[in-house]
Amino acid sequence: MKLQLLLTGNELMAGDTIDSNSAMIAELITDYGWRIDKKVTVGDDLKLLEQQIHTLANDCDVLIINGGLGPTVDDMTSLALAHVTVNPITEHPDALAHLNAWCVQKGFRLNKSNLKQAMLPDGCHIIANSRGSAVGIRMLIGNCLVLATPGVPGELRAMMKEEIIPLLNGKFASDYIQTKRLAVFGLGESSIQERVNARYPDWPDDVELGFRASMPVLEVKLTTRGQHAGTKLHEWRHNIIQLIDDHLLGDMPLSVAQAVITAASQHQLSICTAESCTGGRIAAELTGVAGSSSVFSGGIVSYSNDLKQRLLEVSEASLASDGAVSESVVRQMALGALQTIGADLVVAVTGIAGPDGGSEDKPVGTVWLAWGSSEDLRVEKFFLPLDRGLFQTLVTALGLDLIRRYILKIPGLPELMTRRRA
Amino acid sequence: MKLQLLLTGNELMAGDTIDSNSAMIAELITDYGWRIDKKVTVGDDLKLLEQQIHTLANDCDVLIINGGLGPTVDDMTSLALAHVTVNPITEHPDALAHLNAWCVQKGFRLNKSNLKQAMLPDGCHIIANSRGSAVGIRMLIGNCLVLATPGVPGELRAMMKEEIIPLLNGKFASDYIQTKRLAVFGLGESSIQERVNARYPDWPDDVELGFRASMPVLEVKLTTRGQHAGTKLHEWRHNIIQLIDDHLLGDMPLSVAQAVITAASQHQLSICTAESCTGGRIAAELTGVAGSSSVFSGGIVSYSNDLKQRLLEVSEASLASDGAVSESVVRQMALGALQTIGADLVVAVTGIAGPDGGSEDKPVGTVWLAWGSSEDLRVEKFFLPLDRGLFQTLVTALGLDLIRRYILKIPGLPELMTRRRA
Repeated sequence: MKLQLLLTGNELMAGDTIDSNSAMIAELITDYGWRIDKKVTVGDDLKLLEQQIHTLANDCDVLIINGGLGPTVDDMTSLALAHVTVNPITEHPDALAHLNAWCVQKGFRLNKSNLKQAMLPDGCHIIANSRGSAVGIRMLIGNCLVLATPGVPGELRAMMKEEIIPLLNGKFASDYIQTKRLAVFGLGESSIQERVNARYPDWPDDVELGFRASMPVLEVKLTTRGQHAGTKLHEWRHNIIQLIDDHLLGDMPLSVAQAVITAASQHQLSICTAESCTGGRIAAELTGVAGSSSVFSGGIVSYSNDLKQRLLEVSEASLASDGAVSESVVRQMALGALQTIGADLVVAVTGIAGPDGGSEDKPVGTVWLAWGSSEDLRVEKFFLPLDRGLFQTLVTALGLDLIRRYILKIPGLPELMTRRRA
Repeated sequence: MKLQLLLTGNELMAGDTIDSNSAMIAELITDYGWRIDKKVTVGDDLKLLEQQIHTLANDCDVLIINGGLGPTVDDMTSLALAHVTVNPITEHPDALAHLNAWCVQKGFRLNKSNLKQAMLPDGCHIIANSRGSAVGIRMLIGNCLVLATPGVPGELRAMMKEEIIPLLNGKFASDYIQTKRLAVFGLGESSIQERVNARYPDWPDDVELGFRASMPVLEVKLTTRGQHAGTKLHEWRHNIIQLIDDHLLGDMPLSVAQAVITAASQHQLSICTAESCTGGRIAAELTGVAGSSSVFSGGIVSYSNDLKQRLLEVSEASLASDGAVSESVVRQMALGALQTIGADLVVAVTGIAGPDGGSEDKPVGTVWLAWGSSEDLRVEKFFLPLDRGLFQTLVTALGLDLIRRYILKIPGLPELMTRRRA
C-alpha cells in the first residue's frame, strides 16, 4: 500500500502552529507496517488544494487529507474534492444526521455555519467522528482511496483509531506488527547499542530497535513483524530489559516521578524534599502525579541561607566555612527536612543553577544531592554545566531517580551520571 | 517571490520527530512579507528526493531544502542535487576549509564521515554555518534559487538569520513588515476582539491582529505593512495596549513568573509561597527565572494537614471545622508562611486538584488563594474544574498574576477569572 498525506491550513504555513498531526498519523499506522511515502502541506487555497489532490491521488493507493473540514469559509476540503471529481456538492443525509445528533448531545442549536459541514461531494461516504461535528469523507479518485479527516488532534486520533485503521486493515494486507516502548533514565542510546552489539551480535533482522530522547527520559522502542510478532516481542523485550537493567523505569508513557510514586506506594514509604537550586521542581513533579498525596509529605524550598538555618537547622558554622553548596549543608538540609517535615525518606539538593553565582571553586553546574533515610543517608556531588532550565530539569530527574533506586535497593548511580560525578 | 519548502528525513515520516523546522522558517520569513507556498516532506529516499527537487524547482523562485546534509549514508541532499543538475560531486574547497576550521575550533580530528560533508555538486556555492559542521548549498536549478540547509534546529535558525534572509532580502523586493508580540494573562481572545470592535470599528486593513494561545499566556500579535510600518505599529501597539490594559504582562517572550520577578525587583519586594494543591509549582516557576534569588525567599509545600499545623501554624480547630480547603486555612497558611519564611509578600494556595478528593460541598477544581502582605492580605475562592495538570498550570499562573497585580497596585481580578470566582 502506497500512502500519502496532504495537510491543509494557513496556520501550518505561517509558523503559528507546529504540525503534530502528521507525526500522530505516522505513529498510529507504523504499528500496522504501513508508512507515509510523502506528505505535502498547503495553505487554505482552493486552486492549490485541488491541484495537489489531483496529483497525489494519481500517485498512490491511499491519500489521507487532514484539515479543512470545519464550518468556516477557509475550510475547503469538501469543495476541492467535489471540483476534482467534477461532482456537485449537496447536503449529505448521513452527515446531516450526525450533525443533528451532535447538536442534541451538546445542547446546541444547529446553525448555518454548521450546516456547511453537511455539504459533501455527491456519491461520497462519511467517516464517523465520535468527538466533533466534522464528519470525515471517504471516496475514490481513480484507484486511489481518499480519506478526508478533521484537523482537531483529538478528533483525528479517534477517527484514525476507530474508523480509518480498521478500514485500511480490511482492505490492505499488512505485516502483523507489534511495538513496545520502554522508559529509561540515566543510560544513553550509544551505551544501550554497545551492550546490544556485545551481547547479541546476531540481532535478528525482524526485530527493530529504536530510540527517542524525550528529556529527561529515553524511550527505547522495540518493533517486531510477521506471524509470530507477539512471541518475538515478548522474548526480545525480556532480552533488552536484561541489558537496560536497573535503568528501566517501566513501560511508556512514564515519568521518573511516576516511577517513584509507584515504588514508594508499593513499599509504603513517604517522601519529603528540601530544595535549593531546583526551587520546588522535585516537589512539583511528585505532586503532579495523581494519588501522590499518600506518598509525598511535603517540601521546603530553602532558597536563602537564613531559611536553611531556621527551617532545616543547617548550622551557621557550616554555611560560613563550607558554603551553601557543600556536602555538610546538603546533609544537614536532608536531616533537617526529615525532622521538620517528617517522612521516611528525603531528597535534598543544593547547587548553582546559573547563569550567575558560580566561582572558580564552585562553577555553575555544581550540585550536591542527599537522599535516603536518617539512618542511611547517601550524599553525592555532580557537575552538570548546562543552561539553567536544562540543569533544573536534569537535577530534578536525577534526584527522583536516586530515591527510586534507594527504595528498590538498586546499588550505584545511573550510568550516565557516574561520568558527571564531581 | 514564490517560495517552497522540501523537508527530508526518515524521522519526519515515522512519527518519531515532530517537524518544528518548517514553522521556524515560516516564522522567520513572515516578518519580511514572504510566505511558504507549499511544503513537501519525504523520507531518506534518493529517487523520491531527486523527483521532488526537480518538480518543486520547476514551480517556484526559491526552494529551501531542509535536512540531509549530515555525515551519514542516509544524508543524501548533496547527491540528489548533483543528480538533478547532472553535475559530478566533488570536494568543495570552501566546504573543506569550513570543516577544517570547525574541527580546529572543537579540538576534533577531521574524520572520514565528516569529509563526506565537503562533497558537493560541482559549481555550487556554500552557505556558511556558524554553528555546525554542515555547510549549506546554494545553486540555481533553471531559474529557481535552491538553498539546502541543515536539519539541526539551532544551525538552521542561525543560517536563516545570518545568511539566507539577507540573501533573499537583497534579491527579492518585499513589503516592509513589522511585527510586535504581546504577552497577556487572564483576558480571552474573544474579549479582546470585542473591545477592538467596539472601540475601533474602522480598524485599518494594513494592521493585522492575531492571537496564539500558549497556555497559560495568550500571545497577541500585531503586524503592519508598507512604507510607514514602523510608525503605524507604534501607534496601534499603543492603542491595543489601552484595551488589554492591566492584563498586559509585557513583550513576548515572557512568562507570568518573569513578569512577577521584574515587578518585585523594581519595587524591591521579596516573595514567599505556601502551596498545597500546586505542590511547589509556584516556587518552581519563580526560581526558573534567572536572578530570582533576590526576590524569592523560599517556599513551603504543605501537602499534609500535619505540616500545615506545624510549619504554617494553621490551627487544628480550623482544619477540623472548615477543612483544609477553606478561607480560614488559606489565610493562616499565608500568614504562617510570612512569619516562618520571612518575606514582604506571600502567595498561598489550597485546593482540590483531583482526580480524587472531591466532595459535594467542595468538588474537584475548588481552590482558595491568598496573596499580599500580613497587613493587607487578599483572599479569593475559584472553581476551575479541569484535569489535574491543567488545573495546576492555571492555578500556578493565577497565583503569580495575583501577586503581580498586588505589587503593581492593579485593582480587581483578571477578567477571565472573575467568571471563575466561586
